[in-house]
Amino acid sequence: MITWVNGQPTQAISVADRGLAYGDGLFETLRVQQGWPLRLELHLARLELGCQRLHIKLDFAQVRQEIQSFCAQAESAVCKLIVTRGVGQRGYAIPENARPQRILQLSSAPQWPAENSAQGVRLYACQTPLAIQPLLAGIKHLNRLEQVLARAEWQEPSYAEGLMLDTEGNITDCVFSNIFFVRDGRLLTPSLANCGVAGVMRAWIMQQAQQLGIDCQETQIKVTQLADMDEVFTSNSLYGIWPVVGYQNYRWSVGSITRRLQQRLMD
Amino acid sequence: MITWVNGQPTQAISVADRGLAYGDGLFETLRVQQGWPLRLELHLARLELGCQRLHIKLDFAQVRQEIQSFCAQAESAVCKLIVTRGVGQRGYAIPENARPQRILQLSSAPQWPAENSAQGVRLYACQTPLAIQPLLAGIKHLNRLEQVLARAEWQEPSYAEGLMLDTEGNITDCVFSNIFFVRDGRLLTPSLANCGVAGVMRAWIMQQAQQLGIDCQETQIKVTQLADMDEVFTSNSLYGIWPVVGYQNYRWSVGSITRRLQQRLMD
Repeated sequence: MITWVNGQPTQAISVADRGLAYGDGLFETLRVQQGWPLRLELHLARLELGCQRLHIKLDFAQVRQEIQSFCAQAESAVCKLIVTRGVGQRGYAIPENARPQRILQLSSAPQWPAENSAQGVRLYACQTPLAIQPLLAGIKHLNRLEQVLARAEWQEPSYAEGLMLDTEGNITDCVFSNIFFVRDGRLLTPSLANCGVAGVMRAWIMQQAQQLGIDCQETQIKVTQLADMDEVFTSNSLYGIWPVVGYQNYRWSVGSITRRLQQRLMD
Repeated sequence: MITWVNGQPTQAISVADRGLAYGDGLFETLRVQQGWPLRLELHLARLELGCQRLHIKLDFAQVRQEIQSFCAQAESAVCKLIVTRGVGQRGYAIPENARPQRILQLSSAPQWPAENSAQGVRLYACQTPLAIQPLLAGIKHLNRLEQVLARAEWQEPSYAEGLMLDTEGNITDCVFSNIFFVRDGRLLTPSLANCGVAGVMRAWIMQQAQQLGIDCQETQIKVTQLADMDEVFTSNSLYGIWPVVGYQNYRWSVGSITRRLQQRLMD
């Protein structure tokens, strides 16, 4: 795996880094095609929001340039960026002189079954709830034990993803994806004001819906409302869009709005 | 700073370690006196509970022996142990062959003002809430952004610690301490079934209370109940016990049960 830390090739970071000590940092996972990081500005926008929330001062011009140089080494790949607060002494107080660390890792593009996009996927019903924490909601920080526990709940490859609810029973997102619904020609996606990660592909889909004249609302959605949904799909920066055809006893067909968005993404 | 990784002196870990990627691990902070880690078995018991919750398989006999050898290098110090799930490929799924990493760091004992123990401390009223997540409550995992944000709320040295409430307004713990109350000769401490870290000093105090015939209950406590409390103190493995004399508009004197427990700790 090709790795840079602060622009230099190395595989190691300090054990005193606060990214390790407290998960004190953020990450982004970018799809790379022909040496280019896709949707880079959307990734940087989310990273910037995360840095604001965590009070991390980052040089975004430098990060942008570094990601572009780094990705130019690859054809089709995944580029993961981790930004940590940097090295600190023991204790939670943010060190005055902390220098953010930039870690870039290049790995091969994951091979998901082609039928996930074509015929759709079934979602596992995760029991691990997402805790309600507005201060950390939406951003892609390094505190990901909930996702680790949720992903450990199922091994069966017949489930491509798992749906997660918050501790109050609201549908929030999937373990590594966001989720969208279509009802009466309108797009719905869970509000992520309380928890969940606001994916870059989710932001892209919301942009496209606006351009296509499809109404899209962020709202609270309970499992009992699933019976009213005409289409369901998940989204993620790496795989794009997967239609959802099953969750618990609910069944859906692949719908026309899902196909339209998939087509637009391929274009 | 003296550091071992898996028993070998080094300052570096892999950037692919899941402790960095997801905060996928646990830690313990032990006080070292004359080369001995204090309350080692209580620390190991909490670590074991954490490993069970996170499905991390650790050789505890090896960890115990390693901590003892490591601490023998110091007189008065702090020993921090981090256990991570180990190196993994990208993605939340727990790798089948993950080998837990053991990181030991020795640092100098923190110098808190002596009057904290003698005359008591004031607590800052943190606005950062603790999210309710029973699956992660009590254990000392590496997802600590809530504590980082809470500790960043105040700089004034007149506040030695900050009190944290959960998202439902229950008093839970302090940023790096637990909290106890005395009411009508009985000890009360917040239930940590929903969030918070169950400190080793907290466990020690509950043991001592039992031996002293002092009733101790874990229960839900709201800020409005503070007016009923006769004594308040915080606890932490490194500093022991600090009487609390102020929080918002509440004032307390240092009480006799607090002094008895402090005395017992010094003995």
